[in-house]
Amino acid sequence: MRISELSRSTGVPVASIKYFRREGLLPAGRATAATLAEYGEEHVHRLRLIKALTTLGGLSIAATREVLAAVDRADTTDAALGAISYALPVPVAGAPAGDSDQEEEVETAARADVAQLIAAMDWQVPDTSPHVRGLAAALKQLRRLDAGYRPDGLLAYAELADSIARLDLRRAADFRDPAALAEQAVIVFALSAPVLELLRRLAQEDRVRRRITAEGPAAGDPEAGDPEAG
Amino acid sequence: MRISELSRSTGVPVASIKYFRREGLLPAGRATAATLAEYGEEHVHRLRLIKALTTLGGLSIAATREVLAAVDRADTTDAALGAISYALPVPVAGAPAGDSDQEEEVETAARADVAQLIAAMDWQVPDTSPHVRGLAAALKQLRRLDAGYRPDGLLAYAELADSIARLDLRRAADFRDPAALAEQAVIVFALSAPVLELLRRLAQEDRVRRRITAEGPAAGDPEAGDPEAG
Repeated sequence: MRISELSRSTGVPVASIKYFRREGLLPAGRATAATLAEYGEEHVHRLRLIKALTTLGGLSIAATREVLAAVDRADTTDAALGAISYALPVPVAGAPAGDSDQEEEVETAARADVAQLIAAMDWQVPDTSPHVRGLAAALKQLRRLDAGYRPDGLLAYAELADSIARLDLRRAADFRDPAALAEQAVIVFALSAPVLELLRRLAQEDRVRRRITAEGPAAGDPEAGDPEAG
Repeated sequence: MRISELSRSTGVPVASIKYFRREGLLPAGRATAATLAEYGEEHVHRLRLIKALTTLGGLSIAATREVLAAVDRADTTDAALGAISYALPVPVAGAPAGDSDQEEEVETAARADVAQLIAAMDWQVPDTSPHVRGLAAALKQLRRLDAGYRPDGLLAYAELADSIARLDLRRAADFRDPAALAEQAVIVFALSAPVLELLRRLAQEDRVRRRITAEGPAAGDPEAGDPEAG
């Protein structure tokens, strides 16, 4: 198909297709004349993945390029899953440093929280993992907010996250073809984050609405205002 | 304290403090002379919250302004929680439309998936909820990717999301002072998303590493390669 048809069937504007070509995200079409190229189903497929990563996944062009490179390098081993996991951007940006003494204290405490949590969960991850550093940065900010943050409260969340990861890996492992596996891993690792967040928001919304409807003595006890409990 | 001291104790540059003032995110200090203002602990507190929302939470200035307005409007009722939940940006941007007939079919299917899931979970949320629309947009993109997406697989995620929301609400409800409650709700609703995502990534990383270490017949069965199972 021509580029115009590729644009129609994917909903991606011609200018964006050309941009993705220049940025190395989309392979070249088969040249049929000096200024014409023929595109196939593999281009439709790849464009949909690019669109999903950049819109649903919220990835930058540079991050998308890195993730697609990991997909294309994938061989039969599980190592592809690891490569993709590390290629995805970490959701916490480093915060600017404040007063240095106090900052160091908070930093040390946040790192200790992370180490303790990882030990409690028996997670086999190195200190150099971007996810370890990202979590420490996030906890550092929560600690500084001083709004009832308690590190022991994280364990219940970690256990639920573990159950989610178990579902994720099971979904990713359904695919045997390495290219399909790598692509599935990207979808599971990068694109289920927004879906999961929306599910959490819906569940929160439901619980808040039930509290409001109940108009009971719910302020101190979330269960008291929950009609399910009655 | 002077603006320079406020900057030192929060790690926010003076130029950014002035910017947040102009954008209406930070209240004015007490004027002590024509060009001097005195700032207090409430400014330190508010600046830390602004910093956390914009860096850890990834919120835009406009979204931060809306969320802080919801915090400041908070009265004793749970309605504050609802207002904050709706003020937070939805993590899925609308995707550009593709071929219209096919697009409509996918759209209808995605909406049906969401309606079915909400019914199965007995979530009391209106069709007009931004989270309902966001989830439909996300599922539409996953459907178009055609990579083994199965709507029934969502139910297990929804149940885990429900458990997470239960933890969230319990944490938010620990605070009785309305201003503290509203601020805590923002932290729980906006800032635990990146923490949860990092925990999921750590758990994924652990599971992938265990599969690699085991080098067993793990490709089709994630449990087989898990040392925990042995």
